[in-house]
Amino acid sequence: MYLTADSRIALLMHEGTQSNMGKTGLSMLRYSSSPIVAVVDYQTAGRSLQELTGIPKAIPVVESVAAALAYHPTVLAIGIAPSGGKLPDPWFQELEQAVQSGLSLVNGLHTPLAQHPALAPHLGPNQWIWDVRQEPPGLTVGTGQASQLPCQRVLAVGTDMAVGKMSTILELNRAAQGRGLKSKVIATGQTNLMLGDDGVALDAVRVDYASGAVESAVLRYGHDYDYLFIEGQGSLLNPASTATLPLLRGSQPTHLILCHRAGQTHIANCPHVPIPPLPQVVDLYEQVSRAGGAFAGSKVVAIALNTGHLSQAEAAQALQEAQTATGLPCTDPFRHGVDLLLNAILAYPI
Amino acid sequence: MYLTADSRIALLMHEGTQSNMGKTGLSMLRYSSSPIVAVVDYQTAGRSLQELTGIPKAIPVVESVAAALAYHPTVLAIGIAPSGGKLPDPWFQELEQAVQSGLSLVNGLHTPLAQHPALAPHLGPNQWIWDVRQEPPGLTVGTGQASQLPCQRVLAVGTDMAVGKMSTILELNRAAQGRGLKSKVIATGQTNLMLGDDGVALDAVRVDYASGAVESAVLRYGHDYDYLFIEGQGSLLNPASTATLPLLRGSQPTHLILCHRAGQTHIANCPHVPIPPLPQVVDLYEQVSRAGGAFAGSKVVAIALNTGHLSQAEAAQALQEAQTATGLPCTDPFRHGVDLLLNAILAYPI
Repeated sequence: MYLTADSRIALLMHEGTQSNMGKTGLSMLRYSSSPIVAVVDYQTAGRSLQELTGIPKAIPVVESVAAALAYHPTVLAIGIAPSGGKLPDPWFQELEQAVQSGLSLVNGLHTPLAQHPALAPHLGPNQWIWDVRQEPPGLTVGTGQASQLPCQRVLAVGTDMAVGKMSTILELNRAAQGRGLKSKVIATGQTNLMLGDDGVALDAVRVDYASGAVESAVLRYGHDYDYLFIEGQGSLLNPASTATLPLLRGSQPTHLILCHRAGQTHIANCPHVPIPPLPQVVDLYEQVSRAGGAFAGSKVVAIALNTGHLSQAEAAQALQEAQTATGLPCTDPFRHGVDLLLNAILAYPI
Repeated sequence: MYLTADSRIALLMHEGTQSNMGKTGLSMLRYSSSPIVAVVDYQTAGRSLQELTGIPKAIPVVESVAAALAYHPTVLAIGIAPSGGKLPDPWFQELEQAVQSGLSLVNGLHTPLAQHPALAPHLGPNQWIWDVRQEPPGLTVGTGQASQLPCQRVLAVGTDMAVGKMSTILELNRAAQGRGLKSKVIATGQTNLMLGDDGVALDAVRVDYASGAVESAVLRYGHDYDYLFIEGQGSLLNPASTATLPLLRGSQPTHLILCHRAGQTHIANCPHVPIPPLPQVVDLYEQVSRAGGAFAGSKVVAIALNTGHLSQAEAAQALQEAQTATGLPCTDPFRHGVDLLLNAILAYPI
């Protein structure tokens, strides 16, 4: 594990505290178990993090990595994902500065940095660069053997990307542990990995090894926990997305939680791809999971509805409508917590 | 294009002329449009290729690359895939010998060789090493826009891997061209790429870019041809397999051909994974293709049944049973050609 409770994180968030580019960093601010000592964003330096993001933490926002050094960080984590996947030169120079100042780096970008000639030679004996988004070594192809595990395996699936799958899984795990259950998160994306959960950066794995990579992560913990909460990725409805199939095959889930943003009618950036009514989406996930009888299959036991953009009255109505349409328990994890989802899982033991 | 009609191929096939390890080489022997001048297999050197493989070609089988040089090859193609993906040392030394003798290399293994320190420095100005199984540069994520193409897009899908998807696609394209149709194969695996068809080595592409890689290959040709025959990979029923989903999303097929080996009841090497009855498999592929209405979807228009292991009477019965069960035209491309499949495609224009 690179990040521990002793790590002191400076979070590189230029132009990201108020945009979608900073999604990874915002999740770290919400959920990181390692302390974050400074947020670096030249656009909003000096302002209140809570006012900027709604996250109730008193972490200073500073204009540069140089300014962040005053808070004695041990690690600089890249919390932004610029389009194209490459940091602009001035921001990259701040990485060099961080390494030369003794910090380690956590890199969630697609482009690896561990061997970068401007960074690697300057690493001291206790410094490291963690390229989160890399295919793990030694992968093999999947076999479906996760189905033989004694544990319950809960996978979040979605009507689209970025509808709340990771947050739902994190909250479910927290709630399960709160009830004294032996449960664990299996991370499948770089953000969740940067929060400290073990797993695999699925989007960086070659197609040949994708289900095997998920299977391997699930098998590592399936005998030691009663509940594995597996972070979902992508969507069967999104034409850009491949990850759902290896997640289903590799983890052989016992339960699915379907995540949806209330009122979203089309896939983001794909106005030609409508999101079908929720009951059809529930059927689709169960059909693919079961594959006509090739696998035991899994049941969608509840709906996690993201209603953050709605008024309280609108949200209540959206929840009621989704529940009526699907006949399934339905809640917004952010507004109402995940007890209802967890109850649905516990009520349906395999 | 690395391989042309002027290339003279020596085919490295040690221990592969009579085993599954030589699947790629056997397909090259059957379908390569570049001439193959010698087959290298120490186990069967001196014997008749036709007697060994059933392929009616008078190509000499020799014991070593050194012996193959007498036939003036310009290229050595690796036609075997040893388990673990690595060539034993003595065979690797034959690659060195080939390069030092002026040959280029075609490498279908997962491990790239183009930069190998024992090979790269010895390449002359007209020599090259083609690592077939590499992710192409400059990929983007998929958008589903192949659905807007004016051409028909025919994708082979299967009840398992290695049931005849590639051969069916190659024969369909040949038959379509024979009828004067403007048609083209889109290759998605290393063998088909080594036969000279353009496309992408899908199993080497990262999950994030898988559907985009297929989409990009389809868009390159979709405006210039009336029929694209897209090589299938893997199976929705095989727990090791991820490729079917990005193939469906990236190519947005108009027609599916379902390939099956007659009598196969379980996924190869997975006795715990039964193959459901064909009608359920047909439904599954159509459901995933349509995704509850997110996409236009495609229809399974015919079944390609592999009956090579059956007697003529058994084969006839198997074809009849599959046809009765599914209500779809059903034939064995190897026994009876693909006219029936092509007719089914032409009878169902989108």
